[in-house]
Amino acid sequence: MQEPFTPTEIKIAVIGGGTGSFTLLSALKNHTSQIAALVNMADDGGSTGVLRDELGVLPPGDVRQCLVALSDSPKVRDLFNYRFDEGTLKGHAFGNLFLTALEKMTGDFAAGVELASEVLGVKGTVEPITLTNVTLVMSDDTGVEVRGEFEISDYDFGGKRPDFRLEPQAEPNPRAIRAIETADIVVIAPGSLYGSLAPALIVPGIGDALRSTKAVKIYVCNLVTKPGQTDGYNVADFADEIERLADGPFLDAVLYNTEKPSDNLMDTYAKAGEKSVEFHKEKFNGKSYVAVGANLLAGSIWQNSSTADPIASSRTLIRHDSGVVANAIIELYDDIRSRQQA
Amino acid sequence: MQEPFTPTEIKIAVIGGGTGSFTLLSALKNHTSQIAALVNMADDGGSTGVLRDELGVLPPGDVRQCLVALSDSPKVRDLFNYRFDEGTLKGHAFGNLFLTALEKMTGDFAAGVELASEVLGVKGTVEPITLTNVTLVMSDDTGVEVRGEFEISDYDFGGKRPDFRLEPQAEPNPRAIRAIETADIVVIAPGSLYGSLAPALIVPGIGDALRSTKAVKIYVCNLVTKPGQTDGYNVADFADEIERLADGPFLDAVLYNTEKPSDNLMDTYAKAGEKSVEFHKEKFNGKSYVAVGANLLAGSIWQNSSTADPIASSRTLIRHDSGVVANAIIELYDDIRSRQQA
Repeated sequence: MQEPFTPTEIKIAVIGGGTGSFTLLSALKNHTSQIAALVNMADDGGSTGVLRDELGVLPPGDVRQCLVALSDSPKVRDLFNYRFDEGTLKGHAFGNLFLTALEKMTGDFAAGVELASEVLGVKGTVEPITLTNVTLVMSDDTGVEVRGEFEISDYDFGGKRPDFRLEPQAEPNPRAIRAIETADIVVIAPGSLYGSLAPALIVPGIGDALRSTKAVKIYVCNLVTKPGQTDGYNVADFADEIERLADGPFLDAVLYNTEKPSDNLMDTYAKAGEKSVEFHKEKFNGKSYVAVGANLLAGSIWQNSSTADPIASSRTLIRHDSGVVANAIIELYDDIRSRQQA
Repeated sequence: MQEPFTPTEIKIAVIGGGTGSFTLLSALKNHTSQIAALVNMADDGGSTGVLRDELGVLPPGDVRQCLVALSDSPKVRDLFNYRFDEGTLKGHAFGNLFLTALEKMTGDFAAGVELASEVLGVKGTVEPITLTNVTLVMSDDTGVEVRGEFEISDYDFGGKRPDFRLEPQAEPNPRAIRAIETADIVVIAPGSLYGSLAPALIVPGIGDALRSTKAVKIYVCNLVTKPGQTDGYNVADFADEIERLADGPFLDAVLYNTEKPSDNLMDTYAKAGEKSVEFHKEKFNGKSYVAVGANLLAGSIWQNSSTADPIASSRTLIRHDSGVVANAIIELYDDIRSRQQA
C-alpha cells in the first residue's frame, strides 16, 4: 500500500473498542507509529467476562484486540487471537490469558499491557481508558436500570436515549488523558455507540481532555443502526450522542459514508432490524462541527476478493474500508489544519 | 560469576526433565550458548496432565521449564512459570497454556517450542526427545503393569528393577538425535531415575545415538535415593540403570557428590525414606566409565543465604550446587579430551 505524504509523524489517539476500532487501528498504523489506542474497560462478555468473574481482573479482550491490531508480528498476532475450543479452557482467547496472567502476577494491568506490547512488537501504545474495575450501568427516566455492558448490548431502549454511568466511579488513566492532550488527531472510532463508546466517553476527565486538547477531533460515524438502540438515528443523531456522553461540544468533524450498499445487502440487514445511517444536511445547521461525506464502504471489495477461503469470499458485509477511512481522516486533518492556519 | 576459560563454544546436550535438569541448564548456559535441552515427553501430572487429557496435546510442562531455564528475559521467565490460583484456570502454568495454544494453532509442537524460544530469548534450543504422544508403561516379572509417569512416580517397585516402555512406540525427534550426535558433551542430568530419565532414555534411537556419538557422556548422579524405587542404590547402581535403560555401555564418566549433608538434614530426609547415595570404589572395577567425586552440595549455601524471604532462607535441602556441577562437567570434559589426545 502506498503511504500518503506525511512530513512529520502525526500523533493519533483512537477512542473505541469493538471490531470497527481494531480494523481502523490496523489501517492508521500505516500512517504513523505515534498511535495510542484508548480502550473502554467495561467489557464483561465471553472469555473476558469469565476471567473478570473468576479472577477479578480488568477486562483483557478489547486491549488484546488493539494490541493485535497494532502488532507487526503475524505469528504472535495469530497466537494472541487463538481461542481454545475444548476442555476447561474452551472459549478463552490466548491473549486474554496472557494479559490476565500478567495482571495477576504483577498486580498491575498497565505493566502487563506494556510487556505484551513488547512481545507483540506493537507500533504505538494501548492505554486502558481507566484502570478502575468498572461496571457499565444504564438507566432511563422510567427508573429502569441495566447493569453490565453485555446485558446492555442486548437491551431494547424503547426509543429513549438513556443515561450511563460507571460503578464504582472510574479514575481516568493519566496516560490516556495525556494521549488525548498531546495528539494531533483524536479519532472516535465507529462501533457500538452505547456498548463500546459510551463506557469510554463517560469516564470522568475524558470530556475535559477532549474539550481542552488542540487535536483535531473526528468522529467516524457508524454505517448501520442497531435495533432497539439507535433505530432511526441519522449521522447528526450519532454525533450529538457522542457529544452528550462526553459533555461536548468538542468535535471538529464527523466523517460519514455516502455510498449506498446494494439493495440485496440492505434487505439482509433489514431482516435483522439494521438500516443505513442516513445523512440529512439540514440537521447540521448551527453545529460546531462539520460533516464530511465520502465513499467509505468496503462491501464491493469483499464481494470481489479472491481469497482462498470460499466462506470469506462469499461473505458480504456492510463495513468500512479501513484503509479508505484512515486516508480520509488524514486528509480531513490536513484540510482542517490548513484552514486554521489560513 | 567468573566463566572458566573456554577457547571455543562447547556444544552440550542435556538429557533430563525435572528440577535437577532445569537448574543445571541455567548453570550450563553460562558456559556456552550451544546448548540443547532434550526433554522427556511422558509427563502426565498436574497442569500438563489436564491439558493432555482435555486437549490431546503433547506435555508442555518440562519443555516450559527448560525454556525458562535457558531464557535471558527475567520478566517473561516469571510469566511462563506463573500459575493461576483461582477459577477454571487454577493450577495451570501460563507457559503450559502458551505451548498448548501454539500446538493447537499450528498442529506442530516443535514449531510452537521454536516460537516460544524466540519470545523468551532462549540461549540454545529445547528439543522434545520424541514428538509421539506417548504414555510411560512400567512392568515387572510378576506381571504387574503400571501406566503413566504420574502413577509410576508414586509406585513402590518392591526392590525390583522393572522394565519400561512407551506406548505407542515412540519415534525419536530427529533434532534430538542430531543434538546428541553433534555434541561435545552429553550430560545425563540428575533427577528421578525412573520418572524423568527412563522415558527419555528408552526412546528408540537414543541409545544408538549415545553409543555412536563422539561426545563425552557424563551422568550426574542423584544425591539421595527415592523410597520404593531406588532404596539402597549406590552410585554404580544408578549409573548401571542409566546404561541398562538406553542399552549401554556408552558412559564416559559418572559425577558424584563426596560431601555428607549435615546429620540434622539427613535425619529429616530419612523420615521420608530418602538416604544419601553412597559411593563404593570397588563397584567400579571393570566398568567402562570412570567415577569422579567432588563436593557438589548446595546445602550450606542455602542455610547461610541472606534472602529476604524467611521461608526460603530457613529451607535447607539436599541439592546440587548447579554452578559447581556445571564447572565440574566442563573440567571433566577437558580432562577426558586431553587424556584422549595424549
